Amino acid sequence: MKKVQKLPTIRRLPTYLYKLNEMRKSGVEIVATPELARYMNLEAIVVRKDLAATGVTGQPGVGYKVVELIESIRSFLSWDNTSEAVLVGAGSLGSAILGYEGFEEYGLRIIAAFDADPGKVGTIIHGREVFDVDRLAELTRRMCIRLGIICVPADYAQDVADELVKGGVHGIWNFANVSLKVPEDVVVQREVIAGGFAVLSVKLERMRRQHENRDPEVE
Amino acid sequence: MKKVQKLPTIRRLPTYLYKLNEMRKSGVEIVATPELARYMNLEAIVVRKDLAATGVTGQPGVGYKVVELIESIRSFLSWDNTSEAVLVGAGSLGSAILGYEGFEEYGLRIIAAFDADPGKVGTIIHGREVFDVDRLAELTRRMCIRLGIICVPADYAQDVADELVKGGVHGIWNFANVSLKVPEDVVVQREVIAGGFAVLSVKLERMRRQHENRDPEVE
Repeated sequence: MKKVQKLPTIRRLPTYLYKLNEMRKSGVEIVATPELARYMNLEAIVVRKDLAATGVTGQPGVGYKVVELIESIRSFLSWDNTSEAVLVGAGSLGSAILGYEGFEEYGLRIIAAFDADPGKVGTIIHGREVFDVDRLAELTRRMCIRLGIICVPADYAQDVADELVKGGVHGIWNFANVSLKVPEDVVVQREVIAGGFAVLSVKLERMRRQHENRDPEVE
Repeated sequence: MKKVQKLPTIRRLPTYLYKLNEMRKSGVEIVATPELARYMNLEAIVVRKDLAATGVTGQPGVGYKVVELIESIRSFLSWDNTSEAVLVGAGSLGSAILGYEGFEEYGLRIIAAFDADPGKVGTIIHGREVFDVDRLAELTRRMCIRLGIICVPADYAQDVADELVKGGVHGIWNFANVSLKVPEDVVVQREVIAGGFAVLSVKLERMRRQHENRDPEVE
């Protein structure tokens, strides 16, 4: 499998989208690159490249049409069509994800949750019913769901992934701290929460060195 | 401020570290690049570059010493020293982060939580006491904490950031879906959960096109 190009660009697109949607709601029609650059804390050239990756180009000296930019990003990410998903593991992380209101804007609709705990099965969490995980493959297939979100402890994640694949899922968003084995035609995105902390740590260390050395050239 | 170089590399380092720690626990002393490449789902050349960024080079035809690699990554990320942090917002996401056991391995120790809900103040969540958010700046300063983790709803995040800065914090890990204004010498890492979903969406779309066109050259 070829690797995905321009990972940082792809990761940043939802943040652009969030800002642009806010602008649209406030009636803003045109946005200039420097404004986006300030918001994203990036250089203008990086912003231009990020947006060009989605197939849109701004007008020099004017900027981008907000609505056009939103459509271009959503289309690039295939977020103009809604994807339905099931979520497995209704613990604190699973509940946090079920409660996150931004996903609908990203074309993601979580329609059911699954858990092994009999105390949770049958309850409603943030509007979604929690089903017994024993029915995961059956219900996923019956509802024609193509996406699964795994929020169970690492030791259970492979079993859950196997059931999701049996249920016909094409994509898995994996929050468990483990590498999953899946067939070649299934895509897994592993979410490593410490990845962000690694970035923060490196930034802090750079800031500390700059302060100590009073040397703006340190990189 | 200069931008951080090699973001994808930095983001991937915790995943290497996780795998390498597992190997060390199993008594493995040497690891070859292809094995790490398979685990990371990357090409070998990318793995070599990632690891070289931390200042370590493997022996051609042999591989890397597991212990050396672990030390090199931890040192690059400054995770060989423990950072103490406070967490603000003990809702479902905050609780999930408090319950995550991997952080100590990354040199992150969350020592207290804060919340505005009187029903939560005084309780213990995953071993940490929850304090009244009104005492955030005071206690952060008194405990000499330099890191804050924000898990409150977006509307409250700026107020919390202001209090953390008053309390002497140098770094903020922001899980609220909002851009924060902080002084120049404070580093913010904004965690956009949809970033991972964006990557998954792009990968899925590529897979779909490959299937439709039966064209392995599509990229």
